Amino acid sequence: MFPTTIGIPGRNLSLAAAVTAFTALAENGGLAPGGRCSPGDRDHAELVERVELDYRHVNPPGRSIGDWDTYDSELRTPDGDLVATLTGTGRILYQRSRDGHVMMYYRERLEFPDGTAQTAGWIDASEIIKGVAQRFPVVGTGGALSGTIGIRGFRPTPDNPHSRYESSLVLRSLPPGTTAPTSPEELDLLLTLLGALIGPQVNPEPESGRLEAPPVSTDLSSTTSAVRSHLA
Amino acid sequence: MFPTTIGIPGRNLSLAAAVTAFTALAENGGLAPGGRCSPGDRDHAELVERVELDYRHVNPPGRSIGDWDTYDSELRTPDGDLVATLTGTGRILYQRSRDGHVMMYYRERLEFPDGTAQTAGWIDASEIIKGVAQRFPVVGTGGALSGTIGIRGFRPTPDNPHSRYESSLVLRSLPPGTTAPTSPEELDLLLTLLGALIGPQVNPEPESGRLEAPPVSTDLSSTTSAVRSHLA
Repeated sequence: MFPTTIGIPGRNLSLAAAVTAFTALAENGGLAPGGRCSPGDRDHAELVERVELDYRHVNPPGRSIGDWDTYDSELRTPDGDLVATLTGTGRILYQRSRDGHVMMYYRERLEFPDGTAQTAGWIDASEIIKGVAQRFPVVGTGGALSGTIGIRGFRPTPDNPHSRYESSLVLRSLPPGTTAPTSPEELDLLLTLLGALIGPQVNPEPESGRLEAPPVSTDLSSTTSAVRSHLA
Repeated sequence: MFPTTIGIPGRNLSLAAAVTAFTALAENGGLAPGGRCSPGDRDHAELVERVELDYRHVNPPGRSIGDWDTYDSELRTPDGDLVATLTGTGRILYQRSRDGHVMMYYRERLEFPDGTAQTAGWIDASEIIKGVAQRFPVVGTGGALSGTIGIRGFRPTPDNPHSRYESSLVLRSLPPGTTAPTSPEELDLLLTLLGALIGPQVNPEPESGRLEAPPVSTDLSSTTSAVRSHLA
């Protein structure tokens, strides 16, 4: 007998309520007047992010599919106050069939003075090397941040595209009646669901209707000049 | 100024209501007593799917990352009645860092006697070659199926793993107050959102915490024996 029912691990998370809250957060930037103020809330529209990147080439010296990295970041306010530290890892996975855009997948752990959070999601590397902001969903995992969801935005700076980012971080408590993820599978599901709302299209339909190899190949090696020329 | 607000194209789709309806559909298989009955509803727990596959090797004769295919299917009831025809395309995109599972992405167009629908989503190829059912979200796009969402499940048969599938198809009208997607971007967003609920984990966290190359390499060439041994 073919299996027709499917258990969804995050059922108790009130996923629909999380989608509603997250959509509102995305559309008003978390800065709406009259927003709640609870211990887990965060509102950082402008952060300075210093990144220590360890990049592994699978086919040096160029950049290739399969390259991966790890990094440590510090997120600070413009005044220099530390908001959070972050450890992350990402990998170049494929090029989209429609336009050859280079797709990377990341996972990050954030540590705040009063709690922890995680991110996961796709980046359109062909956009971010032009300086276009990318975004990950954030889910609080401990301390004051338990039961929060939010958005982390970031883009490289022209002068130091691999070591200095402009970023943002907005977190809000989930609506009453919802609960925080209690397992890695639930956390992953919630991050994937929220990421669908703000991430790049992972593989849009090509005009040919065929998911063949992309028509163009993207050079990932000249990040600095790409960011500079885009922002000029 | 760093951009802090994000427009979500599917806002008018009542995405949260779609998530609620879709979760219920997944968990009861669409076969709950007292379910609605509208012209777009479909309840096919057991279908016979014949597949004409055109598979393109990037590095013949073995199977490799980058291989892609197109196919035409007929979905029939066990009595032989035609339910829908289908054209699809997919591509092997990467291996997950944690376990080396091979991830493919697909897009499909379904044609019913009274309407049309589309699917898109991830397949865990390392699972389906063992005969484990995979699932795509379905969104109605025309005719009686406009305003429906649902689930298409499928798994290969041991004797003809590349040309005959067991499959299922369940569609339900969206709740009152929700609307069907009106652009390719909205359709893609809805498919991605619903796919997050029933699809494989796209890149779960490895124990090492690093998204490096996977520890194992998966042989994709022996589908028939893999399906047979799994089902034996």
